[in-house]
Amino acid sequence: MEKFKVTFYPDNKTIEVEKDRTILAAALSAGVYINSACGGDGVCGRCKVIVKEGICSMLPTGAISLEEKKRGVYLACMTTIQSDCLIEVLPESRVEFEHVSVRNRDKRLEGFYGAAEDVPQADLVPRLEFSHLPLTEKIYLELVPPDLNDHISDLERLYRAIHKARGVQVSHSVLVNIRLLGQVLRDAQWKVTATLGKRPGMVELLGVEPGDRSGANYGFVFDIGTTTVSGQLIEMGNARVLGTKATYNKQASFGADVITRIMYAQKEEGLEKLHAAVMESINGIIHGLTAQHRIDLNDVTAVLCAGNTTMIHLLLRIDPSSIRKDPYVPAANVIPVVRCHEAGITVNPHGLLYCVPGIASYVGGDVTSGVLSCAIDKADDVNILIDIGTNGEIVLGSKEFLVATAASAGPAFEGSGVSCGMRSSAGAIQKVSIDKDTFRVTCETIEGAPARGICGSGYIDTIASMLKAGVLDKAGKIKQVSDRVRRTGNGMEFILVAKGESEAAADIVITEADIENIKRAKAAIYAATVTLMKRLSFDFGQIANIFIAGGFGTSLDIRSAIRIGLLPDVDEKKYRFVGNSSLAGARQQLVSNDALRNADEVAAKMTYLELSVEPGYMDEYMAALFFPHTDLTRFPHF
Amino acid sequence: MEKFKVTFYPDNKTIEVEKDRTILAAALSAGVYINSACGGDGVCGRCKVIVKEGICSMLPTGAISLEEKKRGVYLACMTTIQSDCLIEVLPESRVEFEHVSVRNRDKRLEGFYGAAEDVPQADLVPRLEFSHLPLTEKIYLELVPPDLNDHISDLERLYRAIHKARGVQVSHSVLVNIRLLGQVLRDAQWKVTATLGKRPGMVELLGVEPGDRSGANYGFVFDIGTTTVSGQLIEMGNARVLGTKATYNKQASFGADVITRIMYAQKEEGLEKLHAAVMESINGIIHGLTAQHRIDLNDVTAVLCAGNTTMIHLLLRIDPSSIRKDPYVPAANVIPVVRCHEAGITVNPHGLLYCVPGIASYVGGDVTSGVLSCAIDKADDVNILIDIGTNGEIVLGSKEFLVATAASAGPAFEGSGVSCGMRSSAGAIQKVSIDKDTFRVTCETIEGAPARGICGSGYIDTIASMLKAGVLDKAGKIKQVSDRVRRTGNGMEFILVAKGESEAAADIVITEADIENIKRAKAAIYAATVTLMKRLSFDFGQIANIFIAGGFGTSLDIRSAIRIGLLPDVDEKKYRFVGNSSLAGARQQLVSNDALRNADEVAAKMTYLELSVEPGYMDEYMAALFFPHTDLTRFPHF
Repeated sequence: MEKFKVTFYPDNKTIEVEKDRTILAAALSAGVYINSACGGDGVCGRCKVIVKEGICSMLPTGAISLEEKKRGVYLACMTTIQSDCLIEVLPESRVEFEHVSVRNRDKRLEGFYGAAEDVPQADLVPRLEFSHLPLTEKIYLELVPPDLNDHISDLERLYRAIHKARGVQVSHSVLVNIRLLGQVLRDAQWKVTATLGKRPGMVELLGVEPGDRSGANYGFVFDIGTTTVSGQLIEMGNARVLGTKATYNKQASFGADVITRIMYAQKEEGLEKLHAAVMESINGIIHGLTAQHRIDLNDVTAVLCAGNTTMIHLLLRIDPSSIRKDPYVPAANVIPVVRCHEAGITVNPHGLLYCVPGIASYVGGDVTSGVLSCAIDKADDVNILIDIGTNGEIVLGSKEFLVATAASAGPAFEGSGVSCGMRSSAGAIQKVSIDKDTFRVTCETIEGAPARGICGSGYIDTIASMLKAGVLDKAGKIKQVSDRVRRTGNGMEFILVAKGESEAAADIVITEADIENIKRAKAAIYAATVTLMKRLSFDFGQIANIFIAGGFGTSLDIRSAIRIGLLPDVDEKKYRFVGNSSLAGARQQLVSNDALRNADEVAAKMTYLELSVEPGYMDEYMAALFFPHTDLTRFPHF
Repeated sequence: MEKFKVTFYPDNKTIEVEKDRTILAAALSAGVYINSACGGDGVCGRCKVIVKEGICSMLPTGAISLEEKKRGVYLACMTTIQSDCLIEVLPESRVEFEHVSVRNRDKRLEGFYGAAEDVPQADLVPRLEFSHLPLTEKIYLELVPPDLNDHISDLERLYRAIHKARGVQVSHSVLVNIRLLGQVLRDAQWKVTATLGKRPGMVELLGVEPGDRSGANYGFVFDIGTTTVSGQLIEMGNARVLGTKATYNKQASFGADVITRIMYAQKEEGLEKLHAAVMESINGIIHGLTAQHRIDLNDVTAVLCAGNTTMIHLLLRIDPSSIRKDPYVPAANVIPVVRCHEAGITVNPHGLLYCVPGIASYVGGDVTSGVLSCAIDKADDVNILIDIGTNGEIVLGSKEFLVATAASAGPAFEGSGVSCGMRSSAGAIQKVSIDKDTFRVTCETIEGAPARGICGSGYIDTIASMLKAGVLDKAGKIKQVSDRVRRTGNGMEFILVAKGESEAAADIVITEADIENIKRAKAAIYAATVTLMKRLSFDFGQIANIFIAGGFGTSLDIRSAIRIGLLPDVDEKKYRFVGNSSLAGARQQLVSNDALRNADEVAAKMTYLELSVEPGYMDEYMAALFFPHTDLTRFPHF
């Protein structure tokens, strides 16, 4: 296959591409982002460029006027490259996300913005094996060229070969693929790679490339949390995870929890800004991981997102306002498959975007995905899943039933909204012990790196250790027992790592405000768990496993979590820490159509318990605002 | 439901619309055509307007810059009307088809351009009843409002009600419907009309409107011929034909047959111009019939097109060049369902466009549709369908087999390319008799209107009468037998109606050149029919019915057609004149999903015989270049 050098201005980026590639695809390969609202179908007319030098061939289009044509303006998605080229992207065609205002940005978060970081891969989820049936697939085909005895059309010839290779009947293709097909097939001497995408009830032809590119097919899965966005790059052909990154959701600038986000969305330009912010987080992870692994963005053909209901609304720019109004009904829990570009995700222009179906306003697809990955819906025994995030979700169930509830915990367990909080990445304090006599503190950080802050599991361990060592009372007040405790304008604080003891620019401390924060968070989750159990007349003795999910670190000390009253005081053997179960379930769905269908079944089967109308919940919450609890008989071991 | 008055500038058209309607929908209702390349999904950003007065509410969109917003620019598809309004459509947002050059336009055609005319409804097709399952459907629903015990999302509530009403599972919806849903449902107090569209393997939600609009659902079917475009407006709910119009295909300016069109498509801007021309013909018929019946274009939700393979390529702006290159392979015979707007058809922005599947480069969906409407594929007996158009197609078959072939006849039978030719509409001479002794001519016109020209059936009758009266010899030379015959610079001509005898501005004549034209056309069709029969070893005694289809008039004198050698000299009882069988089959498919599936089966079953490589075809053709034939034993009755 002939190859040409293409340089894009004003980015001044050069890339080598095959003959007959579109300018849009070449730009994406070069990391130049051209506006393509319609996903490269040639209808929106927004991807205008000027070909300064070289030969390009444009398919007929009504989107370029004769006057523009004279000026050398081409539509990037409808124009193929036929020689070395110099191409200028017109200003109006450049993708520029609206600038996210930093005025309201929480100062605590600032250090962690921007660069997404690699996260250690917590892969502790009990794996249920689904057959490998990726949602998008690239198939290399050597077509028999037509002759007078075999004169079916180009498109049917391709469909026939796909059917022969995979037993699959293609029922849809965008027009632009058909418009390009004749030339691609003939120039590639009938040896091409077809990309297929699966939608409910149908298989779609997403694209046709010359030569054998069957190995170059990638997807992304995302867990879109209120505070944290986590993404994974997956090789579709073998379901291998190539990389994982997490970053704070840039929407945090507009409010810490879903309620404040929904309120912000009602403001002038509010929904646009929230949408642009999460897009920056998502596209940042995509561009970071593809660059690191030298993967062409055109080869990213599928993105699957799990997230709470509000996050999915904001991802798709759907008004979330009804979520917070009685009777708390979202616009949609089950989202149809759309193109990534429709949401603003810059991957292959025809790439498909899947959203895991949610259950209710406060129980989203992330919970569906978590249940799937823990296989709760397949188990004979009754199990619990407690997903600890800014919104805490609890699911109780078995293969017979599934009931979910949710409680607002705030972002403290994700290291946000607390004085020295940080995401669980290198340098985060995740384990803490305090000597009973000397009050000397021993900290363990992720990857053993110099301490930079405290992640969720670190806070749990810190408070548990402080309780054990007598630094903290049951109400959450710090006692003046050592010179590590000091009084500030805002109450007492305890120094974990003094400035001199680490590379941190300042002391790493935990304040009474932080502890109050964590206390309210743990009370909400504990009360929700207990209320759900009571409502369904279960006691913990009947539960086989308690799956603990969340992004607070690779290691959560279950004993510490019980000691602070976050988790109930039951046999520790019942606990299984499963990390980000939403992301794990998303991965299973991306590479298995069977898992995707399973997720639909889980969502359809799961019922929702609204706590705000549940008698007893508020009492349970108030009673849990102590360490571990006002009713100590519930925590006999602590 | 509250209603508001909306006026559009510069058209200065006013319309009354319901609250929450989009500006785009209001404009379409008012007959103001705004560019909407993406079909109103809010992604292309081309439907910009300025709201001069009144209150409008825009859904969040990235397609309008802050600067534009300040200037009062709104995206018409994303903005709903909340009061009386004055709206200006920006120049760049106006739909203006490229001007079709008239330089190359055949002078003969000029009088018939522009206004589409009503055609008498030839509905002689033997009807096979399919169940009434229209491809799009409007369903009125009174939803149960959500409460705390029934808190499924808006979209699923709608899906649930649709399932309850029709047993149908919706599996797709465009994002913009979901974005608008919450407001429409609540403003309409949960009483709405949902529009559903059927695609292979799935049902799509096309739109949601307030109140009961279930009766307001319309579709169009088209037979897109090389020379003539015929359309029908159908009421989807009861399959009633509200009106029929036909017009010359404006592509005729660029060549009379498919080969010259394909060659023109290779020129700079050629494909664009051909596409724009056929769009003018199609949209002209749509706007004419909807205006006449006071139907809102938003209520046209489906268009189904049957046409020859080249016409369908040009309709969708697909390069047809491979059709005329050995081995004559089109880009696609089976076209996926797309949106009408993708092709440029200005109806409901989410309306679906279906194209009847074709068989080969020269046997298109019009033939599939014709076979369906004559039910040849269901018959125990062997039947023939002869479709006489610019491209003549012949199908031989039964429920056991279907074989098709095609021959280029030219546009003469459609009244094009002949000196006094016209479409079969009021004033066209369709029956002629000539007194053997006095050579007095008696003409019968369509609707008895004053004679304006001669349509296809009129030419056949004229030549047959001239032969019978001895005015014409077997080779096609006019004999100087009367003062109605005169010599001109281009040979002899025969006067059918002298200037003084009718309201025509000039004499209505038939020339030797016209007769030569018809002779070549009839020879091509006769030779193709006989060659197909021979190839499959059939003789006419084995044939039960010979269906004659074509747009040459409401009445074709079969005896005249045999006398000139167009049709074989067999028992006249075998002939059935079925008019435009392609349009009839298209209508069946539009209102019956079963018929649509049947068409797929017909296309899959039909095989194609390429005449150009068939030994004996050229000999048959040469032998047929006489009236009726060189071998008179084949026409014993004439």
